[in-house]
Amino acid sequence: MTTLPSLHPIQYESILRRGLEEDLGLAGDLTSDAIIPDDVTVSGKLVARTAGRIAGVQVAAHTFSLLEHKVSVELLVEEGTDTSNDAVLARVDGNARSILTAERVALNVLGRMSGIATATQSIVAAVKPFKATVVCTRKTLPGLRVLEKYAVRAGGGVNHRFGLDDAVLIKDNHLLIAGSVQEAVSRVRGSVGHMVKVEVEVDTMAQLEDALAAGVDAVLLDNMDVATLRDAVSLVNSRVIVEASGGITPDTAPGIAQTGVDLLSVGWITHSAPALDVALDIDAKSVGR
Amino acid sequence: MTTLPSLHPIQYESILRRGLEEDLGLAGDLTSDAIIPDDVTVSGKLVARTAGRIAGVQVAAHTFSLLEHKVSVELLVEEGTDTSNDAVLARVDGNARSILTAERVALNVLGRMSGIATATQSIVAAVKPFKATVVCTRKTLPGLRVLEKYAVRAGGGVNHRFGLDDAVLIKDNHLLIAGSVQEAVSRVRGSVGHMVKVEVEVDTMAQLEDALAAGVDAVLLDNMDVATLRDAVSLVNSRVIVEASGGITPDTAPGIAQTGVDLLSVGWITHSAPALDVALDIDAKSVGR
Amino acid sequence: MTTLPSLHPIQYESILRRGLEEDLGLAGDLTSDAIIPDDVTVSGKLVARTAGRIAGVQVAAHTFSLLEHKVSVELLVEEGTDTSNDAVLARVDGNARSILTAERVALNVLGRMSGIATATQSIVAAVKPFKATVVCTRKTLPGLRVLEKYAVRAGGGVNHRFGLDDAVLIKDNHLLIAGSVQEAVSRVRGSVGHMVKVEVEVDTMAQLEDALAAGVDAVLLDNMDVATLRDAVSLVNSRVIVEASGGITPDTAPGIAQTGVDLLSVGWITHSAPALDVALDIDAKSVGR
Amino acid sequence: MTTLPSLHPIQYESILRRGLEEDLGLAGDLTSDAIIPDDVTVSGKLVARTAGRIAGVQVAAHTFSLLEHKVSVELLVEEGTDTSNDAVLARVDGNARSILTAERVALNVLGRMSGIATATQSIVAAVKPFKATVVCTRKTLPGLRVLEKYAVRAGGGVNHRFGLDDAVLIKDNHLLIAGSVQEAVSRVRGSVGHMVKVEVEVDTMAQLEDALAAGVDAVLLDNMDVATLRDAVSLVNSRVIVEASGGITPDTAPGIAQTGVDLLSVGWITHSAPALDVALDIDAKSVGR
Amino acid sequence: MTTLPSLHPIQYESILRRGLEEDLGLAGDLTSDAIIPDDVTVSGKLVARTAGRIAGVQVAAHTFSLLEHKVSVELLVEEGTDTSNDAVLARVDGNARSILTAERVALNVLGRMSGIATATQSIVAAVKPFKATVVCTRKTLPGLRVLEKYAVRAGGGVNHRFGLDDAVLIKDNHLLIAGSVQEAVSRVRGSVGHMVKVEVEVDTMAQLEDALAAGVDAVLLDNMDVATLRDAVSLVNSRVIVEASGGITPDTAPGIAQTGVDLLSVGWITHSAPALDVALDIDAKSVGR
Amino acid sequence: MTTLPSLHPIQYESILRRGLEEDLGLAGDLTSDAIIPDDVTVSGKLVARTAGRIAGVQVAAHTFSLLEHKVSVELLVEEGTDTSNDAVLARVDGNARSILTAERVALNVLGRMSGIATATQSIVAAVKPFKATVVCTRKTLPGLRVLEKYAVRAGGGVNHRFGLDDAVLIKDNHLLIAGSVQEAVSRVRGSVGHMVKVEVEVDTMAQLEDALAAGVDAVLLDNMDVATLRDAVSLVNSRVIVEASGGITPDTAPGIAQTGVDLLSVGWITHSAPALDVALDIDAKSVGR
Repeated sequence: MTTLPSLHPIQYESILRRGLEEDLGLAGDLTSDAIIPDDVTVSGKLVARTAGRIAGVQVAAHTFSLLEHKVSVELLVEEGTDTSNDAVLARVDGNARSILTAERVALNVLGRMSGIATATQSIVAAVKPFKATVVCTRKTLPGLRVLEKYAVRAGGGVNHRFGLDDAVLIKDNHLLIAGSVQEAVSRVRGSVGHMVKVEVEVDTMAQLEDALAAGVDAVLLDNMDVATLRDAVSLVNSRVIVEASGGITPDTAPGIAQTGVDLLSVGWITHSAPALDVALDIDAKSVGR
Repeated sequence: MTTLPSLHPIQYESILRRGLEEDLGLAGDLTSDAIIPDDVTVSGKLVARTAGRIAGVQVAAHTFSLLEHKVSVELLVEEGTDTSNDAVLARVDGNARSILTAERVALNVLGRMSGIATATQSIVAAVKPFKATVVCTRKTLPGLRVLEKYAVRAGGGVNHRFGLDDAVLIKDNHLLIAGSVQEAVSRVRGSVGHMVKVEVEVDTMAQLEDALAAGVDAVLLDNMDVATLRDAVSLVNSRVIVEASGGITPDTAPGIAQTGVDLLSVGWITHSAPALDVALDIDAKSVGR
Repeated sequence: MTTLPSLHPIQYESILRRGLEEDLGLAGDLTSDAIIPDDVTVSGKLVARTAGRIAGVQVAAHTFSLLEHKVSVELLVEEGTDTSNDAVLARVDGNARSILTAERVALNVLGRMSGIATATQSIVAAVKPFKATVVCTRKTLPGLRVLEKYAVRAGGGVNHRFGLDDAVLIKDNHLLIAGSVQEAVSRVRGSVGHMVKVEVEVDTMAQLEDALAAGVDAVLLDNMDVATLRDAVSLVNSRVIVEASGGITPDTAPGIAQTGVDLLSVGWITHSAPALDVALDIDAKSVGR
Repeated sequence: MTTLPSLHPIQYESILRRGLEEDLGLAGDLTSDAIIPDDVTVSGKLVARTAGRIAGVQVAAHTFSLLEHKVSVELLVEEGTDTSNDAVLARVDGNARSILTAERVALNVLGRMSGIATATQSIVAAVKPFKATVVCTRKTLPGLRVLEKYAVRAGGGVNHRFGLDDAVLIKDNHLLIAGSVQEAVSRVRGSVGHMVKVEVEVDTMAQLEDALAAGVDAVLLDNMDVATLRDAVSLVNSRVIVEASGGITPDTAPGIAQTGVDLLSVGWITHSAPALDVALDIDAKSVGR
Repeated sequence: MTTLPSLHPIQYESILRRGLEEDLGLAGDLTSDAIIPDDVTVSGKLVARTAGRIAGVQVAAHTFSLLEHKVSVELLVEEGTDTSNDAVLARVDGNARSILTAERVALNVLGRMSGIATATQSIVAAVKPFKATVVCTRKTLPGLRVLEKYAVRAGGGVNHRFGLDDAVLIKDNHLLIAGSVQEAVSRVRGSVGHMVKVEVEVDTMAQLEDALAAGVDAVLLDNMDVATLRDAVSLVNSRVIVEASGGITPDTAPGIAQTGVDLLSVGWITHSAPALDVALDIDAKSVGR
Repeated sequence: MTTLPSLHPIQYESILRRGLEEDLGLAGDLTSDAIIPDDVTVSGKLVARTAGRIAGVQVAAHTFSLLEHKVSVELLVEEGTDTSNDAVLARVDGNARSILTAERVALNVLGRMSGIATATQSIVAAVKPFKATVVCTRKTLPGLRVLEKYAVRAGGGVNHRFGLDDAVLIKDNHLLIAGSVQEAVSRVRGSVGHMVKVEVEVDTMAQLEDALAAGVDAVLLDNMDVATLRDAVSLVNSRVIVEASGGITPDTAPGIAQTGVDLLSVGWITHSAPALDVALDIDAKSVGR
């Protein structure tokens, strides 16, 4: 049992299909098809070569099921598990051609998702002494947001907006066109439904006061230094949610969290997280027919 | 005029559409639609906040054309250009709603592609004194390979296989099943067409000798130390192409290149390249109707 | 200029394509192709045969642009306009085959969207003396939600959730499984992001008190009679948003609105709205070549 | 065993997928995922709250199979069954999250299809004393025609053309361009294959005589009053099929049918049929793990 | 002006996209991209190397428009034109890379469609002295039926059913299950709409008599010898349409047509038509920048 | 066990779906649905009416699995088997409606693929006394290349390039633009990766000498007569692979092969191969319920 949300294949199967189509092209796996007879079977295990937080093992496992020869996959860890070096994540058994053909797509997804989860976890761990929650941004790759947002959850973070469509975030360019925070918030309240929250990005204490006066649900303090953040938290005084953003990394996160902000919004965990090193190890003794 | 390959919208438009669909959902851009009247226009510029190698500016520009209100985009740099901090990459003019709605998808693609190009360029620069060429791997994200492989080119690298379908690369698991390098190569030669090259991954000098005897086109020396690489280059003596791989980074690349190998295969430039910091700056004076 | 949100073709063009593909099949428009020479042109007008609120005229117009022979369409009314009988909504000029071939798909969309807008407007008008806002539900047809939700807006209503993904609505079955309102809300708060609002559906005054104690953003009073609704509004005393639902029609809406609820949630405006009677009238004198 | 045509999932599964994608978006079912542990199971039943003719129960059942956790569905009524209030249509057992997540899409389809079947049946019942058959039109919603035409069959009606591609129907605008019924029919006979029937829409007795002279297979009497219809039926004297159309409702249908026409073409049964009230009732005692 | 039906890009553009995607893969046109600078332009002409009937020149022309650099194409012949050796069908001007990259897909479609048109025309010419019309079958390639059926029309043939959905053709296996022609026809009449024609395939004179008694619209005489065909035509005596089928080629067609049948159904014109030899000739003097 | 490559349903299922969608349209199989009760079952066999080389039997079998009522298919021959007249290729058992509805799509694919395999085999047989290998071209139909290339393999041929993306073939138009063979090859070597082979098409002995001097991997001798081919083979003297092309048929192939060329490139085997005559025979005694 997991407390993570369900991730239905209907939400990600097309991603895996695109990956397999890229790799198979029209000619298929030239190497495996030429070398491996059709009826050879093998066993292997998905492993994490380095320690990290695992995300996407269910997705990686699903990859193998998309080729013709059925392959059985047994998951050995849950999503969101912390693993040590060379931890075994899953066992894979079945047709050798299919396992080797699907391997790279499965690993690419698993490495990316676990990389994001590991990066997220590193920030979460860094701010553990403080009340701040780590949230992600919309800085994700086209077509992969559903998996990247899930990986943030598996890493212990919380999801910010999934798109432009599920909440209002008024940014500098919106303020520029509206003329004032008051006017921007007023236009929004007259347009969106009652289930939509409104957040405003502010750069200065003056803007922050305007935002509080306008009655928003949250404020995003963008690129403020630590001293200003502390002042802002004090000014807000728990009336609305306070979020800090701007180039946050594991190094800078604790200092920012210490200011008392509610949320740290971190683009780095999705746009620049290095992949976790994962691999498929075939058991040499398992080759059979 | 560029020496880079053509990148046709037919190859990447679906990627951008997926990105826009993720961001628009069913409700569209709640914030911009509520705040910005339908007929407001603005001008802005795509900028690189930090220095790097640019890739994908044509792709980012195309994003804006996929929404209803046409936006004109003027490219100011070519693909593959090195830029300094705050360099202006393109100018964008037109409907304000459409520009702000498409902004994030355009930036996400541009930041990713330029991040890969910049990472690639850093390795290319590191090995400049040597003859070695930098090549990429199949460690790319599902659905994005066409753009990620292009970014490697823009970064000064060369593309290795695009998939399992365009060349033969015999790896350890294939050898395990075939029994020997000789047998594996023989099966391949009897199967694939005359336009397909054959490379073998080898871990030891003994395997290397087998590969040379089997008549391959290239050898991939996997995770060998520098001394062994030097011995291998000497043994091959220019008879076939020699490629080194295994955890290569800007730090380790020069040492490996110095061994005289022809190619450095680097997964890091795609699976773990940090994004380049790019942004859209709206000109405050440009707001009009 | 409109205060309605943008509706980008990228959001609905696939709907129109599906409609055209249904009508053209493989053989195309047998009748028009056989009778009308390739180069005949005509002019016509989209008209509303009965009075109503118009929605989707931009979408209907776009239909004609999806066939080969370009047709020019001039919109004569804005989205959300109230029209009298036989009002002219748009003029259409161009290739006769293409206009007649696309006609039915254009009218089907326009009639449906205007039907929903008209139904919505009828409820909005009925509750005008009161403060209550009319909102829609998720009772829409698969593949058409983006257009049906837009039509509600054009009818003067406001959109409730667009899907299961943009807000939390705790219903009877969720409460059944969680055991209590308190427990359900607690689980939600520990899971969703800070930009997500939480509403609970309650059937009794006791549940209402639980919901208020649990700290929700809104309550949905389901199928309560008018007297109970009045008590509920009094109990809530403006602390949270109060929404009424359950079989609301133009007849029952005023009585419910009079209780002081903030919102009327009406499934009828999407699941059972009759189509508005729209047609394409060809000008007999316009036939040319 | 049914006398209805087969409805293959290959024909409608994409409709259900679109519905689920609309509801799940990228974030999935926020409420159910937060509240319901992954391993909870429940039982429930699909019920019709009001009496009507059922269509689409097999389609609704298929919805549940498209999410990951398999749910078993037992159909308790056949397509085309008349049900009384609160009739149980199917039982659903399995993973609680999946059942609640898929519920709305399943109900939206079932309510729409049963609404059309019920509306159709009401016309069929109204004209039972007469020989007239009830047929539908092309006034369906884009992407849903296959289901809406099936629902007409389940309601006791017969399908007219499925598109512009399967039969010829010469309308007023075609006649305007061709110049005469004779000329229009002649052009058609010279173009279409031998398996294609030809019908002409006529507004006057003079046009009807032209149509009979031209040798059509059927005539569509558009918006004629009852007296004229009677004259027309008499003139035709069973030589061709006679169809009446124009704003037919359950009230006006018997009068029109009494004129002796063969077919009543009714747009109302698809473009304006109210949905049947259907629901999913979860059995409170069934909650388990 | 043509008497052929309209063929809208919405009906075939996806076919061309699939062709281009097959040819471009992820790496694009390696040869042209490497050799031809981005800004080189050329002119060329589409030619038919051998004499034949042209079909698909509009489709081939459309291929070039699907790549980024716009190419202008001027059609020089109409669909359905008979051409001599080395006839010029169209002129193509524009970006050299794009023209060479799209060339093969354009030619593959043009060669196939013109091959079918030429084969059809050869049968049509062979039976010219007789009244018989040449019709096609459903023996087409998946995904290409819309183009192959159009090519038959361009070749002077007429289209039989486009699918299982637009007319009834009762074959031997249906009769086997129904038990008799009478029963099969009766079931059909009770099920399908009034615009659907009914044909029965018969192997013997006895079956033919049954079919006539059952009241069908057409009979398909399958694999009967010429003498039997003549008897059948005589028996039918113009009461219904008579179609002959079974291995018909240009050689056997006249003998069969001479029996007086109305239609010759010929699978050969689609399933085995050789491609017409078409090519793109680049004008050596046109290379520019 | 087969030595042919794997052909995964993920590579061809969309082709079959397109075929079924073409045949089913919106109305489905009018004839079978009207005549055959829903619960009737039958058995049948896929047979080859004439002798040939079989390809695609696994693909044809997969067609039946795409409709709702599962049908079991037992393959009786392997891909690439030579069969005599009336050979039974597979047995099909199950729901009668589904078998008859899917029949034509299955046969169309099987007939096409076996036609290509048979044509290929006829050339392979014709050149058996010589060392030459038969290879295919890119003259395939859009959307079907994966199956047509596979059929060539099943026919005993070898695949040339699968697209423009997997190898370099420098043709006359490329040479025209580059100016010389030397220049063209040089540009290619500076652009493509180390796993890409380079072939040049030459028309004259002078060009051939240039190509050899430029260091290509293979030469394509286009439309040379037999005497010139012999001179060319002699000149090359085994230094590179020699391929002959240009209107090769079973008649001309032996003469060309006798010149000593390594490869015969044959467009005819894909662009003009007649279909193999295949059919589905239902066992009259198998009809059951």
